Amino acid sequence: MSLSTQPYKGARDFYPEDKLIQKYMFGVMRRVCERFGYQEYDAPILEPLELYSAKTGEEIVNEQTYAFEDRGGRKVALRPEMTPTVSRLVALKRQEFAYPARLFNIGGRWRYERPQRGRYREFFQLDVDIFGVDNISAELELIQLMDTVLKEFGATESMYQIRINSRKLVDYIIENYLKLDKQTGHDLVKLIDRMNKLEPTKFEKELTEIVGSKLKGVKELLQIEKLTDLPEALKDLQSVKELTDTINSLNKLGVQNVSFDISLMRGFDYYTDIVFEVFDTHPTNNRSMFGGGRYDGLVGLFGVEPIPTVGFAMGDVTLQNFLETNKLLPELTTSVNAVAIILGNEYANAEPLIRELRNGGLNIAVDNTGRKLDKQLKSADKSKVKNVIIIGNDEISSGKLTLKNLDTGKTVKLSARQIMRELS
Amino acid sequence: MSLSTQPYKGARDFYPEDKLIQKYMFGVMRRVCERFGYQEYDAPILEPLELYSAKTGEEIVNEQTYAFEDRGGRKVALRPEMTPTVSRLVALKRQEFAYPARLFNIGGRWRYERPQRGRYREFFQLDVDIFGVDNISAELELIQLMDTVLKEFGATESMYQIRINSRKLVDYIIENYLKLDKQTGHDLVKLIDRMNKLEPTKFEKELTEIVGSKLKGVKELLQIEKLTDLPEALKDLQSVKELTDTINSLNKLGVQNVSFDISLMRGFDYYTDIVFEVFDTHPTNNRSMFGGGRYDGLVGLFGVEPIPTVGFAMGDVTLQNFLETNKLLPELTTSVNAVAIILGNEYANAEPLIRELRNGGLNIAVDNTGRKLDKQLKSADKSKVKNVIIIGNDEISSGKLTLKNLDTGKTVKLSARQIMRELS
Repeated sequence: MSLSTQPYKGARDFYPEDKLIQKYMFGVMRRVCERFGYQEYDAPILEPLELYSAKTGEEIVNEQTYAFEDRGGRKVALRPEMTPTVSRLVALKRQEFAYPARLFNIGGRWRYERPQRGRYREFFQLDVDIFGVDNISAELELIQLMDTVLKEFGATESMYQIRINSRKLVDYIIENYLKLDKQTGHDLVKLIDRMNKLEPTKFEKELTEIVGSKLKGVKELLQIEKLTDLPEALKDLQSVKELTDTINSLNKLGVQNVSFDISLMRGFDYYTDIVFEVFDTHPTNNRSMFGGGRYDGLVGLFGVEPIPTVGFAMGDVTLQNFLETNKLLPELTTSVNAVAIILGNEYANAEPLIRELRNGGLNIAVDNTGRKLDKQLKSADKSKVKNVIIIGNDEISSGKLTLKNLDTGKTVKLSARQIMRELS
Repeated sequence: MSLSTQPYKGARDFYPEDKLIQKYMFGVMRRVCERFGYQEYDAPILEPLELYSAKTGEEIVNEQTYAFEDRGGRKVALRPEMTPTVSRLVALKRQEFAYPARLFNIGGRWRYERPQRGRYREFFQLDVDIFGVDNISAELELIQLMDTVLKEFGATESMYQIRINSRKLVDYIIENYLKLDKQTGHDLVKLIDRMNKLEPTKFEKELTEIVGSKLKGVKELLQIEKLTDLPEALKDLQSVKELTDTINSLNKLGVQNVSFDISLMRGFDYYTDIVFEVFDTHPTNNRSMFGGGRYDGLVGLFGVEPIPTVGFAMGDVTLQNFLETNKLLPELTTSVNAVAIILGNEYANAEPLIRELRNGGLNIAVDNTGRKLDKQLKSADKSKVKNVIIIGNDEISSGKLTLKNLDTGKTVKLSARQIMRELS
């Protein structure tokens, strides 16, 4: 029986044309992060399972981790997210970092979920985190960075919406305004987090089961769209003031498509304060794309003094859907500038010319199959490379190579130096 | 109890200074591969375990894979190597590729081995493969590419040695010259593959156990250092002719440090013809660095017509040891050009200036802690960023920013445009 050619379920192969798209996307992310002074880091894709037990959230840990025992009996997991890892790295070298410490990573994450549009089991994320800033300028910077990434891709404000809320405000509402007990509050938050995935009637049924007689009060709150529409009893809270400041400051910095969203929870248990997300408004997608928030307590779990932190993670799958739906992906072409076709058996004599072209910055693939010219030309055409350079005895002795553009069919005789100018 | 800050045993965290080295190394690899017309691909780090059962070799599959069952009962493994994966990719889209197809990948691999100098459980490899060339020009190109990568790092020929052998020659020797049975031949190959890791007396003892009365003949063969010293009965073999051609052609192309090594086996079971490796000759290292060979049968395991293939894999750990031992790693500096220190509470007013600098190509980190100037300067100094830009009310109104070089202490007042010229 032969082996299967299919990739593992829910994971993707990246053929050169797919890899070009990925490299383009990661390249834009990397450039913007570096512009904002962030530095790239990485860490093993395997982590101790216990790293996620504390704060990642029940669903991911119990149902979605790729967890197993290694040959030495250690319980490990393929990282489902990067936040616990970056917190571990900062905790380990806490004294060596200068603050604010700005870190980013682009890499693979694994979650055992049902594959569907916008969701794979192996996906890639840009994670951006700032450590050591205890005021909202950190949130401001990260939201501005997220926004700059999208604009760098060519997105305009109507294509997405930035939504913002505060865990502190939510906690206050549950405890002091709705006066719900801890478990009820927890269940309510988890339900609202799933709100957009549920049928409205199913949502209302579950909501009634959780909050009982307080249904009307909760529904009224969920209809609030502006901070100024909050009940008087909430308006003077510090968390509301910070949300107002953040939105106003973003407006001043030119980010207009940002709004308060009282139903925004973000799944992770570690968020402690402001949370935010970017929502893809295209009717085809109409869903949360990515987000983040402040998590001041995570570094402290490693037995060192906590560090105030804000971070977000941008996934590749929803982002690529967004770019494709809005036709924002540029046409990407192969990195190969030309296929060199060598007539006869002249490789050793042709090699210095090819080397000169490569040293001049051109990417040259050589057809070294020894086939006939027409077969080589056909193959070069199939490879989507735009040019062939034909090198035979004449070309070697004269130093003038034959350059053929496969799109136009145009043929010219040029020196290696002229070809470099022509193709670069 | 607090969580451990240590990475998983045998795996590495890459802090920004480590990541800079990795990016430098991968950047050189990527550039050379692209110069030779290779295109980058990728694939999931999880693969079906059976992918490795066929040809990867007993030791890796039975003792070193990170194998487990996923939540759906599938037997999977973290890929210990890339060759079966790239063969799977080519088999799946066999008709869509133009040949020769040139592919490379740089990514993580996992093997459960005892961590030691030059060996981690998570390591990274450059894998380079060429599909569709059935003559030795493919071997020539890949050896030349390996060699170009090392020279691009600044290596000179005395630092390493390229060794070459042929599985076909070895098979012929075992079957027709030594006339050993299949199992004995297999054991002999596996022993010779481990030769450099064994004490000479232990090697000789095991060798005697395997070949018995043929010990003298085997030892004589193992002492051969040149193709011309092979016994007459072997000299006219096609495999010997191809080895001779390959070495002579490499010499002509300017690669002199290449030699025949009859003891070179390379561990993987899938090699079918010429095999080669690069040996690190520095006394501190003195070991095989990386290698590859021809494996014409692997694509055929997926139920399609086989494709002649040559490939090699270059690991990051032995390579970094090599570069460090030979002092070939350049001094790498942070990507951050300057820390912007904002006096007072002027972020909203300073932001347009910072944005101008970033749009001009500079990477600017902002100190948004609101601390006193001296604390901000101290922190910028600790971060190893070379410059700070001080922005206060005066600077905002005059448009002249204060640029301070933290190495020299020199301070100048410059416009944003002048700073761009100064720092880029």
